[in-house]
Amino acid sequence: MYSGVQFSLYPMADDFVGIITGALGALDSYRDRLRIETDDISTLLVGPPELLFPAMRDLFVSVAASGVHCVLSASVSRGCPGGEDQSICDTDEPIGSVAELPRRIEAAVRKVAEAPRTGQPVAGQFALYVLGSDTHMPEVYGCIELLERSDVLDRPKNFVTKVKGDAGAVFEALSETFMRFGPSEGHITLDITISANSPSPGADLRP
Amino acid sequence: MYSGVQFSLYPMADDFVGIITGALGALDSYRDRLRIETDDISTLLVGPPELLFPAMRDLFVSVAASGVHCVLSASVSRGCPGGEDQSICDTDEPIGSVAELPRRIEAAVRKVAEAPRTGQPVAGQFALYVLGSDTHMPEVYGCIELLERSDVLDRPKNFVTKVKGDAGAVFEALSETFMRFGPSEGHITLDITISANSPSPGADLRP
Repeated sequence: MYSGVQFSLYPMADDFVGIITGALGALDSYRDRLRIETDDISTLLVGPPELLFPAMRDLFVSVAASGVHCVLSASVSRGCPGGEDQSICDTDEPIGSVAELPRRIEAAVRKVAEAPRTGQPVAGQFALYVLGSDTHMPEVYGCIELLERSDVLDRPKNFVTKVKGDAGAVFEALSETFMRFGPSEGHITLDITISANSPSPGADLRP
Repeated sequence: MYSGVQFSLYPMADDFVGIITGALGALDSYRDRLRIETDDISTLLVGPPELLFPAMRDLFVSVAASGVHCVLSASVSRGCPGGEDQSICDTDEPIGSVAELPRRIEAAVRKVAEAPRTGQPVAGQFALYVLGSDTHMPEVYGCIELLERSDVLDRPKNFVTKVKGDAGAVFEALSETFMRFGPSEGHITLDITISANSPSPGADLRP
């Protein structure tokens, strides 16, 4: 199954190039299992679905440690039709709706509870898209239950769901959302935004 | 039909707050026809689908005029199930596959050709998601043809399509992609990233 992500890091600082360059070492331990390519818009990771969020988490936490306001924006995808040799994406993890929804939620809640905490608070939002299927709302509600029970749910917004918490819990909850919900063989995408060190944390700036 | 966008602006500069605040006047002419709400992660626009990209274009071009490297990231949506009173979204525009694909492509190519140019070059990428339909690939190919004929297609990448050109043409081409392709009543989302003043324009930084 083809899985990967296009992501970008935005440090809101004059020295954004130095900050990103200084954090790239956080990806070193993933380089032998992920294909990594960067151009002027984004960085591509292709590899096992269970590695995508830990790699982004480690890089983002490293950038956030600079103290500057920074954002990670990512389009994560599994089961996208087309594509080249995909053996690098092989995984032993169960993907998608291989079990009843309540059992998958239980397992995912446990995974998030056990995920290492980073000490870096983050806020963010995401949308889960299940392509080519008109029965995805129960899966979306299951994923909301996971977020709520994992204490990373902030609030629903138009088009997206807002999350907050330690980066360790938030990235793990999004990883579980990506891996455990939706059809096993279908095309799933997750559009995510994660922010740290915002000057207006938790602000509701509605006029 | 419910239509809107959650978008964020990322100026890569210490003075990101001042740069964004200084550009907000670009939205003034849209405020009577769009619902606009901002929190610490993104800004919501809800309103007629044909206004979403012009509003984002005007704001982004205003920010890019600062000369700093800046990025707009957006999740655009139409036909999302649920939602409150949506009369603010009413439109006289034909939406989605109301005519044969070749005729829609012709009309969209004309719209992009006639769109005002801004003098601001941009690069970016996007993914078009047609939810709840397994017949969306012809619509995606039709949209690629539009981009190619409008001279804003850069290249396909994993999971996304890269675009480039004057902001006027690029935002119009993405607006036409959003409005003219996919089912008229279905749920369509567009995940877009637009960049200006990058220190590595057009770079292919593959290791």
